[in-house]
Amino acid sequence: MTAWPPQVVLATRNLKKQKELQRILSSHGIDTVVQTLADYPDYIDDVVEDAADFEGNALLKARAVHRALGVAAIADDSGLCVDALNGMPGILSARWAGRHGDDTANLQLVLNQCKDIPAERRGAQFVAVVVYVAHDGREFTTRGEMRGHLIDAPRGDRGFGYDPIFVADGETATNAELTPERKDELSHRGKALAHLISLLAG
Amino acid sequence: MTAWPPQVVLATRNLKKQKELQRILSSHGIDTVVQTLADYPDYIDDVVEDAADFEGNALLKARAVHRALGVAAIADDSGLCVDALNGMPGILSARWAGRHGDDTANLQLVLNQCKDIPAERRGAQFVAVVVYVAHDGREFTTRGEMRGHLIDAPRGDRGFGYDPIFVADGETATNAELTPERKDELSHRGKALAHLISLLAG
Repeated sequence: MTAWPPQVVLATRNLKKQKELQRILSSHGIDTVVQTLADYPDYIDDVVEDAADFEGNALLKARAVHRALGVAAIADDSGLCVDALNGMPGILSARWAGRHGDDTANLQLVLNQCKDIPAERRGAQFVAVVVYVAHDGREFTTRGEMRGHLIDAPRGDRGFGYDPIFVADGETATNAELTPERKDELSHRGKALAHLISLLAG
Repeated sequence: MTAWPPQVVLATRNLKKQKELQRILSSHGIDTVVQTLADYPDYIDDVVEDAADFEGNALLKARAVHRALGVAAIADDSGLCVDALNGMPGILSARWAGRHGDDTANLQLVLNQCKDIPAERRGAQFVAVVVYVAHDGREFTTRGEMRGHLIDAPRGDRGFGYDPIFVADGETATNAELTPERKDELSHRGKALAHLISLLAG
């Protein structure tokens, strides 16, 4: 068994990811403090995310943080896989329009690319792979998926990334309209983290 | 046997495609005149290219022209299929950056998306499907492929579309640096048309 440490560094500068992870850990009764790279201003993030899949990129990020800072590290690599785009943007979700982290441009590009795709072929899924590297270097990898479909125009102002254009199976609200609690129950990241938590508790 | 008619309408307004088709037919000794939709100003192009593959979209375009104008029609649906993008842009090649026919934006977007892709995973292929609908309505479909890889920055000013960033297997020049004659020997479109010509001669 590997207990959660008092603090863990999430390999990102995305504060929305931090908030989501902190909330999910809390909901499972885990009081570990989630830090990000923003808390380590001397950390130079030179990881090129050039692996071929989510697992590879999450490993690259978590190992780099663990190696550089000597702390327990966690990384998430996640994305939207659109059926009509053969599973892309996938690992390129955060840089789909060409620049890293421009949520609005990325979302708009997917909408434009899917403009002529008829309703019956608008299926998509969110995928998240979470890698945890414990202080002693042991590695744990889990995966979560959320199946749904894309709509024509964004709705909702919660969440981030592609949340405003995605409706999960069984829901009518977009991911950006769900309450955080409901999103965490359904979401790829929520599921991957729940798996990780049970793995570490096991 | 279906002889080539005196003229055939290519279902496009892209004059570079017209020129390429005319040149390829000539090189096979066929003197059919290639017209385009630009020669039919009353033709209203309301075909939404919403099929799931090249074959489907080429059929949609060729049938629409044959039905509207009552002439022999030919359509090409073609694209660049990048391994690291799971075969995309594929059927969305001409509208990859969101607007139809913006070659520069499309090419630049693919370059940006592939920026971190290492050399060993930069394989790609051009695919062309050609559909010919004879005056009497008989339909013929052929396909051609050209395998190669993507480079980092455009080179050459011949050709069109993604030609400046693609180097075919066995070549060192990009498609935009090849002579037209060499390009037609190697190219997806050249091969698909050579198949069509032998099919019709058959």
